[in-house]
Amino acid sequence: MHLFVFSPLSASARTHLYQQLPTNVEATFCSDLPVDQQFSAFQEAEVLLGNPPAAWLTAGTPPLLRFWQIDSAGFERYRHVRLPIPVANMGDFFAWPCAETMVGGLLALYRHLPELAVLQSQKKWVGGAHVRNRAGLLRGKRVVILGAGAIGLAVRQQLTGFECWVQLLARTHPEAALRSKEDLKAALPDTDIVINCLPGSAEGFFSADLVAAMRPGSIYASVGRGNTTDEPALLKLLQAGYLGGAVLDVTAIEPLPADSPLWTLPNVLLTQHTGGGQALEDESKVDVLLRNLELLRTGQPLENLVELSRGY
Amino acid sequence: MHLFVFSPLSASARTHLYQQLPTNVEATFCSDLPVDQQFSAFQEAEVLLGNPPAAWLTAGTPPLLRFWQIDSAGFERYRHVRLPIPVANMGDFFAWPCAETMVGGLLALYRHLPELAVLQSQKKWVGGAHVRNRAGLLRGKRVVILGAGAIGLAVRQQLTGFECWVQLLARTHPEAALRSKEDLKAALPDTDIVINCLPGSAEGFFSADLVAAMRPGSIYASVGRGNTTDEPALLKLLQAGYLGGAVLDVTAIEPLPADSPLWTLPNVLLTQHTGGGQALEDESKVDVLLRNLELLRTGQPLENLVELSRGY
Repeated sequence: MHLFVFSPLSASARTHLYQQLPTNVEATFCSDLPVDQQFSAFQEAEVLLGNPPAAWLTAGTPPLLRFWQIDSAGFERYRHVRLPIPVANMGDFFAWPCAETMVGGLLALYRHLPELAVLQSQKKWVGGAHVRNRAGLLRGKRVVILGAGAIGLAVRQQLTGFECWVQLLARTHPEAALRSKEDLKAALPDTDIVINCLPGSAEGFFSADLVAAMRPGSIYASVGRGNTTDEPALLKLLQAGYLGGAVLDVTAIEPLPADSPLWTLPNVLLTQHTGGGQALEDESKVDVLLRNLELLRTGQPLENLVELSRGY
Repeated sequence: MHLFVFSPLSASARTHLYQQLPTNVEATFCSDLPVDQQFSAFQEAEVLLGNPPAAWLTAGTPPLLRFWQIDSAGFERYRHVRLPIPVANMGDFFAWPCAETMVGGLLALYRHLPELAVLQSQKKWVGGAHVRNRAGLLRGKRVVILGAGAIGLAVRQQLTGFECWVQLLARTHPEAALRSKEDLKAALPDTDIVINCLPGSAEGFFSADLVAAMRPGSIYASVGRGNTTDEPALLKLLQAGYLGGAVLDVTAIEPLPADSPLWTLPNVLLTQHTGGGQALEDESKVDVLLRNLELLRTGQPLENLVELSRGY
């Protein structure tokens, strides 16, 4: 069987793949090929790992392709693609680290850890008095989580021990207390923290009127996609000191432009799209592929299938 | 009734006290008096708020004193004092913020938030790749909490949602899995995180042999007292890269000397004894006093009594 690896795997993950790959599978790495041979090699794939340009797929499914393992959680760029084979993504693989960055970022904001880290880098001891009277607590906060996917549910789980009152916003999830923008707008004046875990398909969801409905002093955190937040509206209320702060793993433009005021706003923590990261990330992606290959071989249902398949 | 306030309360907390104080209580603020009149005013106290020099108390209990409200959690400096009246401390008032600084600090370390905060202060975008492959997770870690007092129990509660395996070390607490230094030493090779929540009376408890028994790559966090850790031994194993990192709210000497290597060690977060802090801290201390005054007035058991009383 012919595996085409589009993912730019680390050297150690490549070794890991070679060590684990069944003997009947032969791997071709896209990055090893001259550019003008990549597309034709792709067309010979029986299994595909990674996220090639959408145009490669809309040009026609490779005739021998049996399975496509996307190597990310999101797959918006393929939303118009439909293939007659099983397609899987990384499922909740990125969810838990994203959620830890959110909960860690919120605690960091309340406990002024970013400020203390910068002071440490300057070897400046300010002592308790300078920070203590401004420090807050996550304890008992009223939280709304936007999105009840894997990330939103991981955030909810991690908040278990902090005595927070947590509501999920999602159109159809059975445990969602909030179902619509109207529900959300009504809840925001009594909400201390909003955590955006929405996919890119929810473009513009957290609009200016929702930002404006937030409670004075409340905190906005986002690990969704930058395009789901009205960033100019958010920025305005952060600059005005109306909002209490923000933890932003994503922004509308990445890298964040050097002239963005977000860089220097107090009580804003920028985590630079590191949320999904964890050590041995590429190795773990390989493991997800290998598990699905084994399920495919033994005729069992694959894990983390997504809705890019038709008629198989 | 005569209340002597030794605590250096903020102006707003003083206003708060005046607004809430029963009409039959008259307050004298130590800091308002010339130094040579302070001790004699103290001797007229019927109620005392705050932590005067131990010598003031060993010189003889003020004859009219009925109740002493200590304004801290710790009271080591009074360990030789015994008074024939009820004495209370701030109980778990400082516990929850200390615990949030510990759990937030651990998440910050795993998610590289201090590094990201420093990069943000330099307006440097490094993007995910630079950090993601080094990021870790709190999820599922094996944790030992030293001390089963209010802080240790708050840390345990906050870890509830992270799928950690948590063991308490305490001589007598019914839920402690580890009872002695020997138990601890045997557990350390299988422990990912040690969180020191010990009082100052446990001087030198986490000794060099325990530091050396820690697992390679494991993390040490301390919000106890600086004197409970063998800091040179800890420093040595951090510098050697043997340990994975540290979150230190307390150090042996505070302010930390400018030439301490701790300032610049990677994966060490110094929170500068801010752990117990929260906004309206002085107001909350006043509230603890007022609650105990009301309990005293109505003959009910006081809250947060400590063992500095005899024969009442």
